[in-house]
Amino acid sequence: MFSVTVRDHMMIAHSLRGDVFGPAQQLHGATYVVDASFSRAELDADGIVVDIGRAIEVLHSIVGALSYRNLDDVPEFAGTNTTTEVLAKFVADRLADSARAGDLGPGGADLAGIAVTLRESHVAWASYERAL
Amino acid sequence: MFSVTVRDHMMIAHSLRGDVFGPAQQLHGATYVVDASFSRAELDADGIVVDIGRAIEVLHSIVGALSYRNLDDVPEFAGTNTTTEVLAKFVADRLADSARAGDLGPGGADLAGIAVTLRESHVAWASYERAL
Amino acid sequence: MFSVTVRDHMMIAHSLRGDVFGPAQQLHGATYVVDASFSRAELDADGIVVDIGRAIEVLHSIVGALSYRNLDDVPEFAGTNTTTEVLAKFVADRLADSARAGDLGPGGADLAGIAVTLRESHVAWASYERAL
Amino acid sequence: MFSVTVRDHMMIAHSLRGDVFGPAQQLHGATYVVDASFSRAELDADGIVVDIGRAIEVLHSIVGALSYRNLDDVPEFAGTNTTTEVLAKFVADRLADSARAGDLGPGGADLAGIAVTLRESHVAWASYERAL
Amino acid sequence: MFSVTVRDHMMIAHSLRGDVFGPAQQLHGATYVVDASFSRAELDADGIVVDIGRAIEVLHSIVGALSYRNLDDVPEFAGTNTTTEVLAKFVADRLADSARAGDLGPGGADLAGIAVTLRESHVAWASYERAL
Amino acid sequence: MFSVTVRDHMMIAHSLRGDVFGPAQQLHGATYVVDASFSRAELDADGIVVDIGRAIEVLHSIVGALSYRNLDDVPEFAGTNTTTEVLAKFVADRLADSARAGDLGPGGADLAGIAVTLRESHVAWASYERAL
Repeated sequence: MFSVTVRDHMMIAHSLRGDVFGPAQQLHGATYVVDASFSRAELDADGIVVDIGRAIEVLHSIVGALSYRNLDDVPEFAGTNTTTEVLAKFVADRLADSARAGDLGPGGADLAGIAVTLRESHVAWASYERAL
Repeated sequence: MFSVTVRDHMMIAHSLRGDVFGPAQQLHGATYVVDASFSRAELDADGIVVDIGRAIEVLHSIVGALSYRNLDDVPEFAGTNTTTEVLAKFVADRLADSARAGDLGPGGADLAGIAVTLRESHVAWASYERAL
Repeated sequence: MFSVTVRDHMMIAHSLRGDVFGPAQQLHGATYVVDASFSRAELDADGIVVDIGRAIEVLHSIVGALSYRNLDDVPEFAGTNTTTEVLAKFVADRLADSARAGDLGPGGADLAGIAVTLRESHVAWASYERAL
Repeated sequence: MFSVTVRDHMMIAHSLRGDVFGPAQQLHGATYVVDASFSRAELDADGIVVDIGRAIEVLHSIVGALSYRNLDDVPEFAGTNTTTEVLAKFVADRLADSARAGDLGPGGADLAGIAVTLRESHVAWASYERAL
Repeated sequence: MFSVTVRDHMMIAHSLRGDVFGPAQQLHGATYVVDASFSRAELDADGIVVDIGRAIEVLHSIVGALSYRNLDDVPEFAGTNTTTEVLAKFVADRLADSARAGDLGPGGADLAGIAVTLRESHVAWASYERAL
Repeated sequence: MFSVTVRDHMMIAHSLRGDVFGPAQQLHGATYVVDASFSRAELDADGIVVDIGRAIEVLHSIVGALSYRNLDDVPEFAGTNTTTEVLAKFVADRLADSARAGDLGPGGADLAGIAVTLRESHVAWASYERAL
């Protein structure tokens, strides 16, 4: 199995609901360094998993739509705790939508899976992986 | 599949028995930067894999019990080579015990697996992963 | 010249005032990975720059007081843009106060300088250094 | 499952054929930081996955044979795009050959799999994993 | 003293002339991860060293002009060994030109210095710093 | 001013004497990732600060002499606390000796300074810099 990963980041504000979050129930924020991995059983005729230029653009578009925002005010997340885990799935699902829509080029149709890791600090991160 | 990872570290002395270890048969030491990952198929009602505060505490308790010690003198490792691989399994198994004992909170019962990576330098590391 | 550096982090929300900040004028947030360096011309009798345990505690206390907060609501920053540069100076000045107050132990009196770096992402950071 | 990873690097020139590569169709180059992982279900009698000294030597020999070269002129790659993905597979397959040839020591025969990651920058990398 | 640093990268081919370079006399290549630091004694009225958005753009323009090229064919480097040190100075001097030309905004005139680090691998890098 | 840095590492055991060290008074150990920087005002005729191949060899020789040892038993450190700061100075002074002895090549005579950083974990490091 092959995979290719590209990195971007986003800086957001949010608060989390639930006693388990302790002080993170207050409005605070995070820089998420976002690693998006695309996997595929065999390479295409060019010898690649996916057009990395398109992958970078698509990822930047997805994280850019959330960047410099207070996620508490983003309608898509109404009623949802925007935990690192939830955001990793959100980015992965948007990437899957993009792959199916052809935004990653023709090779996007042959991807086996997508994995997204959001690093919230030098000591904590979360990942979500899914098939395509 | 979702996962959450937290990082801690420990600084220990030890020696290794066996010709394969060359100069590492002498008493020496290591800083292990320890990454503990918890995985789970679906998030809980709070939108998390595990209470990250508890995960940090439990990991710190496990590595803290080994920190600043000569592992050659630790009874639990008598007759065992404390290789990076062995220590990765040791930490993972202690984390699994903690999950079963409820130390990670009620969500610990729904974890699918645990993976532990010990980085011994900028150019070498070992991992162990197991189901729960 | 010797120096010792310890790392911690904080996760905050804030907004910045001024056209130069573009979308960062909106309420958003950041994880700052904070590196605090203490320098000294000669080591003390124990062979150290500063008691690293105390340095870690003092730094944690300073960043902990800002963690999980919206800096727009913190009285100390009223009328001030909480840029990465400004926050680096804030942390360095609090560390200097702590050194003078003896919170770093007796060796704190012999420190030559303090430098603080705040990493806001994998591609941007800011530093402030000052004499003591 | 256990794994051990060692890191090395190589600095090469190459060009890529195909419109998808844009400016990378021109002769340019890369530093690849190469992570080679060896996995195994159970540890050997010494408590290790593989003799790490031998693993380091074998990896160094493989990347050393490509280092400081223009891959466009390397006969083994004639007619092949030397993408990061292709090179990850090349290194993994050479490591598998070495394991089967006994170059990793007797433990090489018990390896379950090999994974190779080539980091081409701080924001992009590719991996290939295979069974043994 | 304050400083702000931004990171970008470039992937180039080149060869080096001189016995001291050993195998690097052959045509090979490198990824340079480029850190550009701007320093200033006092912050401006917005609380910043420099407009970071402009700094990112200017740095990207400078490294982009070298990216995906064989430096042996770049007229500006005719007769010059494009060592990591030489390239660090080249980038720093272009940044200084940009600061003086106003490309970094009005604050560029108040910069005290520029430092550039080029990381050629995980185990080697070179820096050049200069006054403005 | 130019500088070039190379990275190596060493894994040692030791204990520290003095109440300030708390549990680190016990026999324990560390991996030190060692960064050695060489600085120089002007580049030599080849366009370099120092022969990086020789610098790597000299550094490896110095850290290799300490690797896989219990520093409590190394005669050179008798009566000395082998703190991270002390070891940074030790490595820097050995590098200075090597420069003066010609082990870094003829360019060693033109070096302005040497700086050494020892990273003992992902959250703590110490440095020593000196003129030549």
